[in-house]
Amino acid sequence: MDRDLFDRMCSFTSALQDDICAAIADLDGSEFVEMPWERAEGGGGCSRILQGGQVIEKGGVNVSTVHGPVPPGLAGELPGEGAEFRATGISLVLHPRNPKAPTVHANFRRIERGKTGWYGGGADLTPHYLYEDDARHFHGVWRAVCARHALADYPAWKSWCDDYFYIGHRGEHRGVGGIFFDHLAGDPLAAADFVEDAAGAFLESYVPILARRRHEPWDEGHREWQLVRRGRYVEFNLVYDRGTVFGLKTGGNIEAILMSLPDPVRWVAGHTPEAGSWEERTLAVLVEPREWV
Amino acid sequence: MDRDLFDRMCSFTSALQDDICAAIADLDGSEFVEMPWERAEGGGGCSRILQGGQVIEKGGVNVSTVHGPVPPGLAGELPGEGAEFRATGISLVLHPRNPKAPTVHANFRRIERGKTGWYGGGADLTPHYLYEDDARHFHGVWRAVCARHALADYPAWKSWCDDYFYIGHRGEHRGVGGIFFDHLAGDPLAAADFVEDAAGAFLESYVPILARRRHEPWDEGHREWQLVRRGRYVEFNLVYDRGTVFGLKTGGNIEAILMSLPDPVRWVAGHTPEAGSWEERTLAVLVEPREWV
Repeated sequence: MDRDLFDRMCSFTSALQDDICAAIADLDGSEFVEMPWERAEGGGGCSRILQGGQVIEKGGVNVSTVHGPVPPGLAGELPGEGAEFRATGISLVLHPRNPKAPTVHANFRRIERGKTGWYGGGADLTPHYLYEDDARHFHGVWRAVCARHALADYPAWKSWCDDYFYIGHRGEHRGVGGIFFDHLAGDPLAAADFVEDAAGAFLESYVPILARRRHEPWDEGHREWQLVRRGRYVEFNLVYDRGTVFGLKTGGNIEAILMSLPDPVRWVAGHTPEAGSWEERTLAVLVEPREWV
Repeated sequence: MDRDLFDRMCSFTSALQDDICAAIADLDGSEFVEMPWERAEGGGGCSRILQGGQVIEKGGVNVSTVHGPVPPGLAGELPGEGAEFRATGISLVLHPRNPKAPTVHANFRRIERGKTGWYGGGADLTPHYLYEDDARHFHGVWRAVCARHALADYPAWKSWCDDYFYIGHRGEHRGVGGIFFDHLAGDPLAAADFVEDAAGAFLESYVPILARRRHEPWDEGHREWQLVRRGRYVEFNLVYDRGTVFGLKTGGNIEAILMSLPDPVRWVAGHTPEAGSWEERTLAVLVEPREWV
């Protein structure tokens, strides 16, 4: 294992958690609450949660550094050899209160097993009401980040993101995507530089969108649609998301894993948008992803 | 396949759907809305949904009769031989509005593959606030039904129910249980008699509880606890329930499958009941199931 790259990722994500929480807390006027946790098999993490804010209805920014024996059932999924692994990373989800402001998720991690180490992560945007400008801005930031690094591949990672965040039983993608990458090794220093550049671009990708949508007018109809769409977010996370399902079934920290779930949420049977409505147009883009930049 | 027993189950569940919906609609003062659906591979069903009632905030009573090739991935789970299967049954979930009134679920089905046919099903109760009288009444009805049939085994099926409705990542059972049985064949006519007696006892098991809890006083604190507990219900159904996960991944009718999800629902991070509170005492019973009768 490369102690330098692992320690570098730990330090980087810890500082980034401070920066992201400070920026969001400043925008919101509320403070994150810190919820540290320990992992029985080794390591732990620190969740920072913002609930009931002015702008963010529920959000969490987690960092964790864990180590120990490769969990049973994960052996086949982790490249490399050896019985021990370690992982460090940052993971965040922000669910804004305003139905016109999109939910966002990002995650950047380094995993090592034996002599093998790699990075994974990405960021994706989930609008309840599609503003094409927002999707273009978000994808534009990630394309620009990728363009600065020879080992990054925006078109492939954009597709990977669309493929991954897919709610099979609904025939819908979770949102308008972003980038998703995994098993990124290659030149380790170049990979580390890319991941730090990308993770560091999160605020630039999202805060301008949040800042301009937080004051959009909305009524109870918009709110209902938002809460129903949040139900789809829950369905994806609990049925398909590898990290969530794996974490739940192997004794991860429940509060940290399920911090991603929105609050409140609705499941209304037979809920379909009106023909020609903004809701229907948004749904059409979730069914059939577009190229944004 | 035994056409008589299959047709008998179809007719029985269809009539029972009428009876249950009539009784609940009468108690509620609202009507169920019928949502029929067809299955591409053969068969279909009819969901009846009640949303936004006076007593039932969301509920559904579904019947379905499906047939066709054994779905890929299910071959190992279905006893018997042959490439074709058929299944018929009734499934219901009722989520009352009053936090003091428990949610209930029941399901009775007949499945056939080749020459092999069997019954499965059960009923279970999910209180947000435990009234021991309610748990005793509910279990008392199911114990009495089982006592009337030589092939039924209340103690074993009570344990099976506790084991099945277990939310592993929370270390909690979904509710106070009831009965759960599967692969019930034996004397086919005796099995059919038992299943009809049991399914026919549903209203007796639940309506007296609903009738006496629907008017209990409650405040916003009770409501919050109810909505957080509903989140656990969603977690069980989407992460563990065999029927739900299988149905979602193999193209079942989404509205009929997810009719079981409550509305609205909350996920509040770090939500724990106060020491010595009714909420905490209820949770203790979900962690450590009891014998009720």
